[in-house]
Amino acid sequence: MSGSQTEKILAGDLRALARAATAIENRKPEADSLLKELFPHTGKALIIGITGSPGAGKSTIVNCLVHQLRGENKQVGVIAVDPTSPYTGGAILGDRIRMLNHHADPGVFIRSMATRGWLGGLASATTDMALLLDAAGKEAVIVETVGVGQDEVEIAKLADATVVVLVPGMGDDVQAIKAGIMEIADVFVINKSDQPGADRLEREIKAIQSLSTRKDGWVPPIVRAVATDGQGIAETLTAVRSFVERGGAKDRAVSNWSLRLREMLRERLLEKFVDVDFQVAAQEIAARRSDPYTIIDGWLKRISN
Amino acid sequence: MSGSQTEKILAGDLRALARAATAIENRKPEADSLLKELFPHTGKALIIGITGSPGAGKSTIVNCLVHQLRGENKQVGVIAVDPTSPYTGGAILGDRIRMLNHHADPGVFIRSMATRGWLGGLASATTDMALLLDAAGKEAVIVETVGVGQDEVEIAKLADATVVVLVPGMGDDVQAIKAGIMEIADVFVINKSDQPGADRLEREIKAIQSLSTRKDGWVPPIVRAVATDGQGIAETLTAVRSFVERGGAKDRAVSNWSLRLREMLRERLLEKFVDVDFQVAAQEIAARRSDPYTIIDGWLKRISN
Repeated sequence: MSGSQTEKILAGDLRALARAATAIENRKPEADSLLKELFPHTGKALIIGITGSPGAGKSTIVNCLVHQLRGENKQVGVIAVDPTSPYTGGAILGDRIRMLNHHADPGVFIRSMATRGWLGGLASATTDMALLLDAAGKEAVIVETVGVGQDEVEIAKLADATVVVLVPGMGDDVQAIKAGIMEIADVFVINKSDQPGADRLEREIKAIQSLSTRKDGWVPPIVRAVATDGQGIAETLTAVRSFVERGGAKDRAVSNWSLRLREMLRERLLEKFVDVDFQVAAQEIAARRSDPYTIIDGWLKRISN
Repeated sequence: MSGSQTEKILAGDLRALARAATAIENRKPEADSLLKELFPHTGKALIIGITGSPGAGKSTIVNCLVHQLRGENKQVGVIAVDPTSPYTGGAILGDRIRMLNHHADPGVFIRSMATRGWLGGLASATTDMALLLDAAGKEAVIVETVGVGQDEVEIAKLADATVVVLVPGMGDDVQAIKAGIMEIADVFVINKSDQPGADRLEREIKAIQSLSTRKDGWVPPIVRAVATDGQGIAETLTAVRSFVERGGAKDRAVSNWSLRLREMLRERLLEKFVDVDFQVAAQEIAARRSDPYTIIDGWLKRISN
């Protein structure tokens, strides 16, 4: 992309932004040079991760958060990430996006991202997308992931603050809280908190929190919400901002970038070898028609190209 | 190394062989070009892996196998691999090698290899060493590993046939049999089979064998041995040869080389990044003094050098 593309994006041109977003989604080579130019202009947006089990009402909360932020006259970006099938996933996200109230608001830029193969690429593309929106002047970028698993944990790590949405009556999902969520949650939201079991869920979270202290000393606040009525949304945003203003996000930025660099390096290296057929090469070696040293040398040479 | 080095090794020159073995152990760059030249002359030796718990009498069995093979007037190589500490490991192996009866026999070439950091390198260097001995005209190469663990499994995979040595009265080690050994054993040797519990151990192995069939249909024979008296050694060698003559080793060569290529590629790539400080780079990025795309590009460029 040309320098003028960069300038257009920095100036908030929506068409240039949409084009760049598509380049990132499709992992086109020009995306990298664009991101390189945009990078010095990033680091201003508040990146909020939203995760939680399916059915917890994440989309409603995202919708309300967008509304809240727009009420503050903030430019907002939303990235909806679905690490499930590219086929069903895309369709579900498409439906969801059409349901968002803010689809026609030029102050809100919404993109869905479905996995194209492997997670590393998705986490990587999500960060790139968040950087793009940041550079384009979005003051808040909400990254919503579907489901709770290792994938979500990886993607949540990219945010300045991560909100985990839970609902009463999850039953054995409290095990899931113990497993991975406690590490990534900077803010807990108990959605549908007008339903039975909200008190119990809050007690359970507090019980787990009492068992261990985070390295940074932060005790993730528990916000009660009824997102369908807009309840608890302002409180959620306040909790997120408290964490970030306290320096929590800055502490995290270096370790996040360190992880991210490893991931990027691994991904770029793998890209070079995606068409390598180890089996065919092994047959050549076993038959002594070639040797492993020549084959490896040949593979390594292609990285420089 | 010069072409004449290659010719000397192929001709069985022991000094040239020793020098090349040291180059492989120390992972010197010239080892690769030498191995490349030697590779077409490999594939003739019978590579026998010997593994088992410490105290199972592996060294005695290796010693007896060498004796047996020398009795057949075969040239023999022995590689003793210790994936434990480079400090203690080296010393223990040194002692063991001095104990071998064949130390003064020019028809036997013995090398110990201790880990220098990480396993990938060790498995890789062990294969290289076996290829060197193969090219140098050793008709049998015995690769002995200390202990039973993932490391040993990796190294055992490199052999044409793997002998797992067990002893009666192992108690809970039968769990270990289930875990990893069943996959890698082409031949079981019950050493110290004059001790109580040998029958029971044989029954246990057979019971585990009855639970599942190997893909290649091979049922690993169980040889009873008393290595200190030389009992069961000829039978062990016969069992190994039966497996190899049946085509078991050839079936395995392609999948072994496929694994090996992945490992080599990974290792060569990592070598290029061993001095990369992700943390420092992440600090530069977090402070916006650099960007991840420039940093990754810079790292990737060094691979071509």
